[in-house]
Amino acid sequence: MTPRTSQTIHPLDVILHKRDGLVLTEAEIRGFIAAVAERTPERQLVTDAQIASFLMAVFQRGLSLPELATLTEAMRFSGEVFDASVLAPGTFTIDKHSTGGVGDKTSLLIAPIVAAAGLAVPMISGRSLGHTGGTLDKLETIPGFDTQLSLARFAEVLRECGAALIGQTPTIVPADRVLYALRDHTGTVESPFLITASIMSKKLAESLNGLVLDVKTGSGAFMKRYEDSRFLAELMVSTGEAAGTKTVALLTTMDEPLGRFSGNWVEVWECVDVMRGIRHPMSRDMIELSNTLAGWMLFLGGKAESAEAGAALSDSLLRSGAAYATWLKIVELQGGDTSVFDNPASFHKPAASRVLHAQQDGYLSAMDCTEVGWAVQRLGAGRAKPGDPVSAHAGIEMHAKLGDKVTTGQPLITLFAEDESKLDEPERMLRATVQIGAEKPERQPLVREVIRATP
Amino acid sequence: MTPRTSQTIHPLDVILHKRDGLVLTEAEIRGFIAAVAERTPERQLVTDAQIASFLMAVFQRGLSLPELATLTEAMRFSGEVFDASVLAPGTFTIDKHSTGGVGDKTSLLIAPIVAAAGLAVPMISGRSLGHTGGTLDKLETIPGFDTQLSLARFAEVLRECGAALIGQTPTIVPADRVLYALRDHTGTVESPFLITASIMSKKLAESLNGLVLDVKTGSGAFMKRYEDSRFLAELMVSTGEAAGTKTVALLTTMDEPLGRFSGNWVEVWECVDVMRGIRHPMSRDMIELSNTLAGWMLFLGGKAESAEAGAALSDSLLRSGAAYATWLKIVELQGGDTSVFDNPASFHKPAASRVLHAQQDGYLSAMDCTEVGWAVQRLGAGRAKPGDPVSAHAGIEMHAKLGDKVTTGQPLITLFAEDESKLDEPERMLRATVQIGAEKPERQPLVREVIRATP
Repeated sequence: MTPRTSQTIHPLDVILHKRDGLVLTEAEIRGFIAAVAERTPERQLVTDAQIASFLMAVFQRGLSLPELATLTEAMRFSGEVFDASVLAPGTFTIDKHSTGGVGDKTSLLIAPIVAAAGLAVPMISGRSLGHTGGTLDKLETIPGFDTQLSLARFAEVLRECGAALIGQTPTIVPADRVLYALRDHTGTVESPFLITASIMSKKLAESLNGLVLDVKTGSGAFMKRYEDSRFLAELMVSTGEAAGTKTVALLTTMDEPLGRFSGNWVEVWECVDVMRGIRHPMSRDMIELSNTLAGWMLFLGGKAESAEAGAALSDSLLRSGAAYATWLKIVELQGGDTSVFDNPASFHKPAASRVLHAQQDGYLSAMDCTEVGWAVQRLGAGRAKPGDPVSAHAGIEMHAKLGDKVTTGQPLITLFAEDESKLDEPERMLRATVQIGAEKPERQPLVREVIRATP
Repeated sequence: MTPRTSQTIHPLDVILHKRDGLVLTEAEIRGFIAAVAERTPERQLVTDAQIASFLMAVFQRGLSLPELATLTEAMRFSGEVFDASVLAPGTFTIDKHSTGGVGDKTSLLIAPIVAAAGLAVPMISGRSLGHTGGTLDKLETIPGFDTQLSLARFAEVLRECGAALIGQTPTIVPADRVLYALRDHTGTVESPFLITASIMSKKLAESLNGLVLDVKTGSGAFMKRYEDSRFLAELMVSTGEAAGTKTVALLTTMDEPLGRFSGNWVEVWECVDVMRGIRHPMSRDMIELSNTLAGWMLFLGGKAESAEAGAALSDSLLRSGAAYATWLKIVELQGGDTSVFDNPASFHKPAASRVLHAQQDGYLSAMDCTEVGWAVQRLGAGRAKPGDPVSAHAGIEMHAKLGDKVTTGQPLITLFAEDESKLDEPERMLRATVQIGAEKPERQPLVREVIRATP
């Protein structure tokens, strides 16, 4: 209650200013995040309650673009960042990040494609969360594959083959760990400002020259409304550009699982097939999105004259086997056993499976893709809480896409699990949500909009 | 992230609903407050961070009147409440509460006045906070006076003399202790909704038939803007009425210290003087406000036909000595030594004092009354943080009121402290804020508006 005299930043003042809708100063934001990152159990420079109150104030009041850029920067430098100077001079570093989807395995294609073209892809990925899959869980189905490299080893792999795929380390963006753990149980997850700061601080800690964001929209996205996804995309692009990283966001449709498989090993399998020249009809959307995203990366990195030319280059790197050669190098350097790729189908050993058949003629017309994602999680491919194990072989295979004509009795979805009892609930969930209608449904294009910084 | 299946109240759901501006159900509010009151270090039914997030969501989104009534009721019954059935059948219980001011000692007059008229005043008071004084700190300057009676002893004193004045106990409204401690450091103090729930839950725990609220407005009030004070008054009246307590709020001007003295013992002295028939000219506003507030209480309690008639009755109880007789009984029953009232001036023994003189001719035209309150605190009468001791004898005496004509060299304020060194900063503060102008200032009336429930 006493008037303040010190010139240092008091967390309470920062809370009061944001609470009342003021624009925070750089010193306030940096001071608050420093207190978050530097606190210890003995020295509570800022309490959990204060952080939670600040997060809810930001949730309600929002942040200006300069505040958001400062917050992201402060979080980015709250710990260790990747030192890109260890790469060859002139190396262009670029990554792709998705806001999360079902069956979205594009990272596994994009990293080797873009690396094969001569750019460096220092990819730090996440795990399955809620109804969405995670790149790390997929990679870890490859026997021996190590996703927990030190930043030093990460740099070596990058230097040798142009891409490396690892998980978050405790030393990267420690402020986000604190904030994220609190957001999760204080109802402050869904703020576009806090999402942007969390994602972008971690991506920018990779010291990127370029970044392509895949912002999902539709029934399987975290943000269901198009305008919300678009707002998030604009915040992320502004924040990336403010940090000096060329940033593009694609708003893409997530209203059914992307590609043929959703799960862990099955998604690796699908990608290996594509890299080996096997293009299953159900993988068409996934290949198209991978080429589009990689195309933007190749364009930003100066390897193509346009995003379209980049997409064509991407497809040729897939077809020539260059992407697959790079993939094999990445896996070897990260300790993985590449022999499983010789016959990926035979490595897929779910103990139980069941086929969902069409109950009538018509068109596959609609599904709640989030519910499909939860069914995949319940099959065992995802986790109910952080730290739970995931099954390598659980998942689903789609036999039809939205808009496809189907006939009574034809297989729609195959479910895989580690035991028979795990199939019942997901089957019910899928049966309840997958609709067959008389009319061919209107579809949204796969890529709905590209968000770039206004020059 | 998993869908919830249990039917019990999850604190996170309550946060999410208020965050998004929904109206909370009674079950949600009761469940949340039960979790707050019943949690233990081992069983964190709700974390500090969750409570803080909820408080900031309420700060930003507000509460509907039914939500506020439910929250207040849930907090009120989170612990022990005063059992009014121990009083004689038909006893009307009534209290007065002020939102906090400088030199506001009206409780010390009102309790004996209203008790002398035959109503019961079960008064649970607070301590000095920030720039405002506290009834408990004043009472505790009376040697032996015990403000920490059990609720059982509190009832005995009430039965014997019609009034008792004690402090909060740990068993009364424990939910408010938790919320208040968190609000103080998470920037959620100044919410009219949270202020109402905090004040009213504690007042209603006194099991009142009537309640008169003195809501301060002006430079010395916690809420400086008239509309804010008015809004708070309306929330409190609605909440009191919803609980079945006849509730009236007076919006009163707090733009200079009320009465002659501000401090601890000096305020008791001023009241004893008035009760013994000594009406110092500087006490005029304080006597007027006390009679007005007591008048409303006597009217609500059926002892007068109108608030005006009640004020006249109040003044006659002061003048007849009936209030003083009751006062002596209260003090005796609570263990206090009434001999100090024989010569209150001689019991006032500040080690140091200094007089601030007028530097020019004119009218006492303005002051920041909050700054005056901080000067009183710095003199030693208030505390910098909870638990600090306060000085019995520190304080100020006003020798002029706003609007009074003053001449160069005349005393304006006398400062009292326990040592010389404590006088310098308060003197500077007072000198900087007390203004003398050529024009007689416009004054607001002492009572600006009366807020009552719409019938």
